[in-house]
Amino acid sequence: MEIWRVVDDLVCSRRLPGLGQTSLRVLRGQRGETMVATDPVGVPPGKWVFTCIGTAARLAMPDHDTLTDLTICGIIDGWDET
Amino acid sequence: MEIWRVVDDLVCSRRLPGLGQTSLRVLRGQRGETMVATDPVGVPPGKWVFTCIGTAARLAMPDHDTLTDLTICGIIDGWDET
Amino acid sequence: MEIWRVVDDLVCSRRLPGLGQTSLRVLRGQRGETMVATDPVGVPPGKWVFTCIGTAARLAMPDHDTLTDLTICGIIDGWDET
Amino acid sequence: MEIWRVVDDLVCSRRLPGLGQTSLRVLRGQRGETMVATDPVGVPPGKWVFTCIGTAARLAMPDHDTLTDLTICGIIDGWDET
Amino acid sequence: MEIWRVVDDLVCSRRLPGLGQTSLRVLRGQRGETMVATDPVGVPPGKWVFTCIGTAARLAMPDHDTLTDLTICGIIDGWDET
Repeated sequence: MEIWRVVDDLVCSRRLPGLGQTSLRVLRGQRGETMVATDPVGVPPGKWVFTCIGTAARLAMPDHDTLTDLTICGIIDGWDET
Repeated sequence: MEIWRVVDDLVCSRRLPGLGQTSLRVLRGQRGETMVATDPVGVPPGKWVFTCIGTAARLAMPDHDTLTDLTICGIIDGWDET
Repeated sequence: MEIWRVVDDLVCSRRLPGLGQTSLRVLRGQRGETMVATDPVGVPPGKWVFTCIGTAARLAMPDHDTLTDLTICGIIDGWDET
Repeated sequence: MEIWRVVDDLVCSRRLPGLGQTSLRVLRGQRGETMVATDPVGVPPGKWVFTCIGTAARLAMPDHDTLTDLTICGIIDGWDET
Repeated sequence: MEIWRVVDDLVCSRRLPGLGQTSLRVLRGQRGETMVATDPVGVPPGKWVFTCIGTAARLAMPDHDTLTDLTICGIIDGWDET
């Protein structure tokens, strides 16, 4: 699982039906890269989270058919960027 | 899901039958890299989109057997390249 | 499989139910990158391990439905960082 | 899907039976990296192609059980390296 | 498939049961990176090989349930590092 900081919500008015009303978060990685993840946890901006990819990302969603390849799995306590 | 800008259509006269007449778009990433994605949304060049990979990329297509590993899932509103 | 050094446990009070009480380890890679892995072996910090990703990462867990994309598969004997 | 130039055939006298007599091509990427792909299209050296990875790479082969993780899916018309 | 040079065996006294007695090889890549692969071919150190990842890596093993994400698929004839 990879470690990211939640920076924002993703505003996306036009999306595939398979994404439903899923919350999408913009994440920033350890080298400054940006990704988008589905969020079944409900994480506010500023928190550090870890994510899983691939099939695990779909299994982590309440609806396993959600169209995602990256899902937030938990909030990390007391993480300092290193 | 990753964030890309649509730069062009991919012209490809000789392709595997499993791709059908699927629209193929050339995408440019945040570090200037180039990829090709299937597009079930219908996105004009210049728009910012997010994509999913792997099995999710096939599930995102109307025909789940489409030969793809990268599919456009939605158009992002008001994205500024950072 | 990739080679990592175990640096710490991951403290995470809020996680998805699909992760259960699984032990999560923080790993450091050969280029200094940081990842999180599930650990069915029981590895103390400081050890060098190798991991598998994707579906294999779930098959490596006692419960194959564990929400993981990276699992420790074994401890390496006498590895010197090169 | 990723974009590559076909540079050569791969000569490989000893291979796993699951690869059969599949044509293997050496590809060069946009940053000079080298990969090997199975080729169900029949592409001569010098052409620009796009490939798919993972399960899609196997589905792209006439025999879906072919041991591959990268398959050529089509020839690109009029591509200029950018 | 990716191209690697076999540099050594991996000595690993404590491993998950799902790996059985599988031979594990340390590989060095084109940019100096190090990985570990399962080896159903029987390759001595010094040889250039190509590997497959993911589900194909498991299908390449005599036992398809082997816990691996990277498997050696064949030995390359007359490869010169470029």
